[in-house]
Amino acid sequence: MTEGFADRVAVAVSATGPLCAGIDPSTELLRHWDLEDTPQGLRRFGLTCVESFAGVVPVVKPQVAFFERMGSAGMAVLEEVLAACRQSGLLAIADAKRGDIGSTMEAYASAWLDPASPLVADAMTALAYLGLGALRPAFDLAAASGRGVVVVVRSSNPEGRALQEARTAGAVPAARGPAVEDMLLADIAALNRGGLPTAGTVGAVIGATRSPSEFDLAGLGGIILAPGVGFQGGTAAGAARLFAGCATGTVLPSVSRSLLVAGPDPVALREAAAKECATLGSALT
Amino acid sequence: MTEGFADRVAVAVSATGPLCAGIDPSTELLRHWDLEDTPQGLRRFGLTCVESFAGVVPVVKPQVAFFERMGSAGMAVLEEVLAACRQSGLLAIADAKRGDIGSTMEAYASAWLDPASPLVADAMTALAYLGLGALRPAFDLAAASGRGVVVVVRSSNPEGRALQEARTAGAVPAARGPAVEDMLLADIAALNRGGLPTAGTVGAVIGATRSPSEFDLAGLGGIILAPGVGFQGGTAAGAARLFAGCATGTVLPSVSRSLLVAGPDPVALREAAAKECATLGSALT
Repeated sequence: MTEGFADRVAVAVSATGPLCAGIDPSTELLRHWDLEDTPQGLRRFGLTCVESFAGVVPVVKPQVAFFERMGSAGMAVLEEVLAACRQSGLLAIADAKRGDIGSTMEAYASAWLDPASPLVADAMTALAYLGLGALRPAFDLAAASGRGVVVVVRSSNPEGRALQEARTAGAVPAARGPAVEDMLLADIAALNRGGLPTAGTVGAVIGATRSPSEFDLAGLGGIILAPGVGFQGGTAAGAARLFAGCATGTVLPSVSRSLLVAGPDPVALREAAAKECATLGSALT
Repeated sequence: MTEGFADRVAVAVSATGPLCAGIDPSTELLRHWDLEDTPQGLRRFGLTCVESFAGVVPVVKPQVAFFERMGSAGMAVLEEVLAACRQSGLLAIADAKRGDIGSTMEAYASAWLDPASPLVADAMTALAYLGLGALRPAFDLAAASGRGVVVVVRSSNPEGRALQEARTAGAVPAARGPAVEDMLLADIAALNRGGLPTAGTVGAVIGATRSPSEFDLAGLGGIILAPGVGFQGGTAAGAARLFAGCATGTVLPSVSRSLLVAGPDPVALREAAAKECATLGSALT
């Protein structure tokens, strides 16, 4: 049986502690690292991150937008960075937030989850505005090779609240159904509980800055990627309260800017990542 | 004052009729065109579409996923196709369905809407799961140069209904607010009615297969991109009923597969596109 994505993450977390380290070559961070805002600068930034994070964090998350802004040249750099992750044993979640339907969604799944694609990662992030069911081609392709799809459910930014808290229709007319975010969580849990051939394929992005919803996250069956720790105001202790009850190795706080400012020195960046991993490991166990 | 995206579309539609022709080099269509499923096949497909559509349709919509599935080599082909659109006077909407927050959304906006980007198009599509407000960097960048952002509101597929029809919170507790899709439409209309420096910057994707919502589409102030005509079962007459009241030149039925099967002969494809444009023009005026 194929080892599921959640299990692969849990094994990696047990070796290092729980942290998803962002690889975010923004204009601002390239400047901070004294690198040019060019494909060469992107490349240096990305490969330094991989070198620094290998062995000290379990999972990295290249932010696709920062590569895409340089067009095909930027995407070629991302291919190199993802290959370096594979060679270094770092699990990579491509933060692509793709979402579409039918053969178009198949094409996005193929780009990020097909082992033969130059952009293949261990998982991709996705948006479910078109319905969680529309993402099915990505779930199926991920499940086939122990890869994952991490669906944005409850985001760390304030602008998403009205939509994510909107109430779906209830089973009977006039009754209120679950909030959009809780509907998605329940549907993700069902996929992880036998809805797909491989357990633990589908994860959720849940901001570490948000109070709990009605859904019991301990039953999700997939990883929880939790942005918001660091610059966005979330703390390790806050994340621990929010995700109390979730099994060790299933919750990955995602830290980007507040960690990446420790560069460009790879030794300093490595030490900062190891320290963050240890802090989060103590808080979340 | 900068000419807004909706005005640019209306001028183009007045010359040819209302149609957004998809450029969808899927595996299936490449096979139908007897082309290899390689970057060379993509290139031939994309450039033939541009050659065939130039002068007979106002707007084309390259589907980014079908290029992205071939990694940086596919994205380099998309750069060529977008450049060919500019040279041919075809308005191009990059169907990217991107959506993120903060500096990440800025990066996506830069990729598709910055005149200096190799992937620059006249507009991009976007997903608002993280809130319409999170897309603001794209709206601002688009408005600065008469470009557009077309936000998916009411999709043509069934899986999106529960989320898009969910009820937002009302102004007073216990009252029901508008559905998610109607909230987005109202917020888009406000942006087009003075919320941005250029009128008509923000459009909406509304499936041509859906019955009207509570929002009066005539007041949107931006273009309506309407997929679903053709293979998904929508008709020109159905689109005319759904969008009755909307000004001529604001509604663009989006047709992809059912048109592209007329290839690979560029003359046959051109004739099919011209015919579709005429049919839609008669129905929608």
